[in-house]
Amino acid sequence: MSRAHNFSAGPAILPVPVLEATSKAVLDFDGSGMSIMEMSHRSKEYDAVFKEAQANCLKLMNLSAEDYTVLFLGGGASTQFIMIPMNFLKTKADYVNTGAWSKKAIKEAQWVGETNVVATSEETIFNFIPKNIKFNDDADYVHLTSNNTIYGTRFDVFPDVKAPLVSDMSSDIFSRRIDFSKFSLIYAGAQKNIGPAGVTMIVLKNEFLEGAKQDAPTMLKYKTHADKGSMFNTPPTLPVFIVNETFKWIEAQGGLDAVEEVNVRKAGLLYDYIDANSDFYVGQIKDKADRSIMNVTWNCPNADLEAKFVAEAKAKYNMTNLKGHRSVGGCRASIYNACPEDSVKALIKFMEEFKAENK
Amino acid sequence: MSRAHNFSAGPAILPVPVLEATSKAVLDFDGSGMSIMEMSHRSKEYDAVFKEAQANCLKLMNLSAEDYTVLFLGGGASTQFIMIPMNFLKTKADYVNTGAWSKKAIKEAQWVGETNVVATSEETIFNFIPKNIKFNDDADYVHLTSNNTIYGTRFDVFPDVKAPLVSDMSSDIFSRRIDFSKFSLIYAGAQKNIGPAGVTMIVLKNEFLEGAKQDAPTMLKYKTHADKGSMFNTPPTLPVFIVNETFKWIEAQGGLDAVEEVNVRKAGLLYDYIDANSDFYVGQIKDKADRSIMNVTWNCPNADLEAKFVAEAKAKYNMTNLKGHRSVGGCRASIYNACPEDSVKALIKFMEEFKAENK
Repeated sequence: MSRAHNFSAGPAILPVPVLEATSKAVLDFDGSGMSIMEMSHRSKEYDAVFKEAQANCLKLMNLSAEDYTVLFLGGGASTQFIMIPMNFLKTKADYVNTGAWSKKAIKEAQWVGETNVVATSEETIFNFIPKNIKFNDDADYVHLTSNNTIYGTRFDVFPDVKAPLVSDMSSDIFSRRIDFSKFSLIYAGAQKNIGPAGVTMIVLKNEFLEGAKQDAPTMLKYKTHADKGSMFNTPPTLPVFIVNETFKWIEAQGGLDAVEEVNVRKAGLLYDYIDANSDFYVGQIKDKADRSIMNVTWNCPNADLEAKFVAEAKAKYNMTNLKGHRSVGGCRASIYNACPEDSVKALIKFMEEFKAENK
Repeated sequence: MSRAHNFSAGPAILPVPVLEATSKAVLDFDGSGMSIMEMSHRSKEYDAVFKEAQANCLKLMNLSAEDYTVLFLGGGASTQFIMIPMNFLKTKADYVNTGAWSKKAIKEAQWVGETNVVATSEETIFNFIPKNIKFNDDADYVHLTSNNTIYGTRFDVFPDVKAPLVSDMSSDIFSRRIDFSKFSLIYAGAQKNIGPAGVTMIVLKNEFLEGAKQDAPTMLKYKTHADKGSMFNTPPTLPVFIVNETFKWIEAQGGLDAVEEVNVRKAGLLYDYIDANSDFYVGQIKDKADRSIMNVTWNCPNADLEAKFVAEAKAKYNMTNLKGHRSVGGCRASIYNACPEDSVKALIKFMEEFKAENK
């Protein structure tokens, strides 16, 4: 089986051992005579998988089950956009607007109550991360997007805030070491770094959860799910199994230390090449600290050459999804945890070849 | 690989060809060099799978895409309990209470507005389906649960109502021929008859959808999803692939005609055996018309024997999940579409053996 060089922004590339373990468990889980997806979520065997996924998440975050609760829910990160204010916006909330996903989160919060956009980079199409933001110390919470998939920016350092910190980490969860204990709520759609589409991981500080409002519909209350160990209703059992396999793969790489080292090296190779070839490839994010190590964005000299670049990469080398998001144009390579360093090197080789032929 | 006799109520048994196709596509989809779950949901290849699933659903329902829209959403049928009233309860709605899931749907509707429980079988722990119900002709909609997984009842004939008819069909979708055109909204969690947990299928009459309220949060409005071909946000891509494989399997069996014939035969074997052995096994549902052909419930002479029955079936023959739901006790065999007739025959053989030894 020849693997594509998969640069998809999500659903995205996953580690081969995770695919292999899933393929096997889909036929038969552990000699049970049942597929992992045919098992009752309340069976002893499946329950152990689910609890292991929760424990592995906390282990990777260096958090304890006494202080934090892990949920695996359906509905995507987009559902979290409304659940967060429905549960926690009592008086007012602060939001940092760093891109399309921040904006969607802001829109839902506005539906619930007073929402202060305390900083934005929208005027320059989100090509930087706002610094020195003045937060409201008495906000119910501060919401930010740790990594902005579309533009290729990320918070290098998270701001110190007095209010509880909430972050959408969908596109860089477990790609680097972070002091997760700074956060009261972390959420991430699985389909970039930790699994397939169809499950969203939510990590809640118990202290924060205890103060949640209780007047929302049943399924939209975090307490509903937390009280039942994230099994109030049937969870996405196969996707959670795959997430757990991905957690085990991260551990097998040497944990977040090792994963971050590789990610920094991969992104460095690509940014260094782009910076050194700025006569042809122009990086979209100027401030090096703001550059995402997951999503790398650049322009070719013109839109025609960009279209040609994307098409040739696919046709010649099966390099997929290099087209930038329609809202910013250009090119983008998403190089998540599972993207092999060799794929990045192959991409750079093609960039050299393409530049030589089209300069 | 020796298969279990899987009688799980859900997540439940799936057809072996579906497991095999999934196992293969998880490693590599159609020679793409990518797993089905590594592909962008907006890629041409994946989009074709998704649209095929929508088309196959309508084909099985004998409905046209001009009149009906198919959505595949996360969050489970439990999320539909709140979405339905948020979108359609303007003045008042009628609900028929035939079990735990109906009750949950009623609770969410009450959160939104006037909810009339027009009939209930709760007094006798839901052991029959109410008949001759007086509906409110001017209700915004009538909601009912077509099959009641926990108790083993089902609507043999759906009532004729003036208001738009809405049904939770989670536990008997595509198990029998139904005039689906009678319904304005049909929804079903996939994890019983059509796939893995993590995706819910919603089929909406376009005329009904057009009248939906638009003041709900973005993700809770059907229109949000319908306007974007059910890809407003990333759908559960792998689960939808599996649902489509299950649809193809149903078609390969000969469609709903053939599937119903087998299901009626399987359920008939089991009910006939129970009825003929009522000195030991007592069926929980007396009215034959009310008996589910998906979930068959019965009691042994006492709770100790029931526990022994469940344990021995598992230990001796790897027959799983025969324990009845805690709210009704007794035993239950869920015999969904994918449950082989041989598993039902094996169960009956064990029932004979168990009766002889314990009478």
